[in-house]
Amino acid sequence: MKKFQVNSSGGNYDVIIDSGLLGRIGNLIHASMFAKKVAVITDLNVDRIYADIVMESLQKATITTAKFIFKPGEESKNLQTVHQILNFLAEQQMTRSDLILALGGGICGDMAGFAAAVYLRGIRFLQVPTTILAAVDSSIGGKTAVNLSAGKNLAGAFWQPSMVLCDPLTFSTLPPDVFSEGIAEMIKHAMIADQTLFIRLQKAHPENNWEDIILQNITIKADFVARDTRDTGIRQLLNFGHTFGHAIEKCSNYSFSHGQSIAIGMMIAARAAQKMGFCQEPVVEPLKALLEMYQLPTDCSYTADVIVRAAMQDKKRSGDWIQLVFPERIGHCFLHSVDLDDLEEIVNNGIRKE
Amino acid sequence: MKKFQVNSSGGNYDVIIDSGLLGRIGNLIHASMFAKKVAVITDLNVDRIYADIVMESLQKATITTAKFIFKPGEESKNLQTVHQILNFLAEQQMTRSDLILALGGGICGDMAGFAAAVYLRGIRFLQVPTTILAAVDSSIGGKTAVNLSAGKNLAGAFWQPSMVLCDPLTFSTLPPDVFSEGIAEMIKHAMIADQTLFIRLQKAHPENNWEDIILQNITIKADFVARDTRDTGIRQLLNFGHTFGHAIEKCSNYSFSHGQSIAIGMMIAARAAQKMGFCQEPVVEPLKALLEMYQLPTDCSYTADVIVRAAMQDKKRSGDWIQLVFPERIGHCFLHSVDLDDLEEIVNNGIRKE
Repeated sequence: MKKFQVNSSGGNYDVIIDSGLLGRIGNLIHASMFAKKVAVITDLNVDRIYADIVMESLQKATITTAKFIFKPGEESKNLQTVHQILNFLAEQQMTRSDLILALGGGICGDMAGFAAAVYLRGIRFLQVPTTILAAVDSSIGGKTAVNLSAGKNLAGAFWQPSMVLCDPLTFSTLPPDVFSEGIAEMIKHAMIADQTLFIRLQKAHPENNWEDIILQNITIKADFVARDTRDTGIRQLLNFGHTFGHAIEKCSNYSFSHGQSIAIGMMIAARAAQKMGFCQEPVVEPLKALLEMYQLPTDCSYTADVIVRAAMQDKKRSGDWIQLVFPERIGHCFLHSVDLDDLEEIVNNGIRKE
Repeated sequence: MKKFQVNSSGGNYDVIIDSGLLGRIGNLIHASMFAKKVAVITDLNVDRIYADIVMESLQKATITTAKFIFKPGEESKNLQTVHQILNFLAEQQMTRSDLILALGGGICGDMAGFAAAVYLRGIRFLQVPTTILAAVDSSIGGKTAVNLSAGKNLAGAFWQPSMVLCDPLTFSTLPPDVFSEGIAEMIKHAMIADQTLFIRLQKAHPENNWEDIILQNITIKADFVARDTRDTGIRQLLNFGHTFGHAIEKCSNYSFSHGQSIAIGMMIAARAAQKMGFCQEPVVEPLKALLEMYQLPTDCSYTADVIVRAAMQDKKRSGDWIQLVFPERIGHCFLHSVDLDDLEEIVNNGIRKE
């Protein structure tokens, strides 16, 4: 078992990483907070495998339970589903002393977290990530959101969970592409903040020691969150690969997964950085090799103007400028404000092969 | 012109009350903040009378404008309209450095404020109240929300405006019932915190000196907001008349206005308090007389069990308890936790005539 505290301007909370934790979740909640009633939000896939064990554990701890199940996939991550969740919470007469539990991957956590942020103007929620991506990235830091038709994560709130409970045993049932998706965010963490993580990922598959490598990733993420909870400065480094990644995800109509898209997004930023002379050492080749080692794509067929048009909705845009993240070397990136007029040339540099 | 600063844990901001302010609004914004683009959110009625003057003033101050108009009335205050507003903001490519302007009454401010709270996880917004209710109550304090089918204001956020700009000239075009609705909130302020305001309202119609009486009301409200922005304690006194009021509003399918409903709600709380021996001096008769002076209702035909059932969704409920507000004397109320099992008897005491 590993335990770690995340500090943020929205509150401090514990992350517990422990194999087999799902079956003890009722007691874990009971031991650290008062909650008479817990509404579990999950998708159909996760429901089939893990909901029963969670519900039983809650009930054994004398907690009243309710469950909302949504259709898996990015196309569910919208305001209609949030509306259904909110109506469900109201029908269940959930009060401010009750608790929401997000059981699933990033989509589930983002959406259930957003519902928790706005139901009765905010009630407490727990993140129980069952994917690597959710465990190392989206469950930490309180960014909740859903998509609008214009783009990803355009409606949301900063709302910190009361606890993050991660059971690495759940990763054993992940399909290969969902597995890789989580590794993409680990590679991002390594690129922006930790060369030792990069080397570790080069050497061996992380399943050799889940608790350890997840903690290493959470430590990186939590450090940015603690320094800039509301994402107005240094936290934006976590956006490495994401401005172009979100654009590609949208261009592909979500046929590229989030992880695949940011893998390509990181490559675009790396190639552009190298061509613009931003790098102190070669970054493109080692990044490409590592992404390929985990079956992640490094290219797409979209043209620069198509990607740029899709990127115009990015939240990091401010007036005529957009904040981008470029690598200087493995383990170190920097923020760079770019005039929107220059964006297409940068993407062009990024998508052209060396 | 009156100027007043509201302090809250979500930020401090100025309230400016000035007759004719709408025509100078572009300069007022320009003078105090950077905003390249302003999206005005308003309803069809307000649009007809006041939108042009606001849009022209913004444009004269070289601010780019956009306008979203919704159908007037409580039935628009829902997630569907918020969804439309969010899509509109995304289509307009509004960024985090742009500004939303809520031009209208409480419904407009609550809903546009909520859209501002969640668009890109929060952008700045201005409250420009054009009703008395919005000016003295809903525009101050950062409570934003929309209704769910289960009840009023069940989805929302705490999100403070960047400025509140109030032009009392707009009150001259209010229909009589909308006028009275605002007075109901003034009477609430008087009941919970300020006997001098109660006496003032007994003596003369407030239009004799709008700037002054609005400032007096905002001062009362801002004091509660400063002491308890997130509404977990003392701010709940502002809920006087509201738990029963919201229930009655819902029972009537919103044919009773918010102001009419809380007038009845205050009467229920006052009668119950007097019967339960909570009052140090008579409150029912003076309250009733003052409400009647402003053509506000003091009774309804719903039975206690119907009202209680509708009240079960109230946000002030926590598990098996609900927080109610009772008057002790004119100008002083107190919070009282009530077992849900006792609620029907209390309402029964409150609806039965003396």
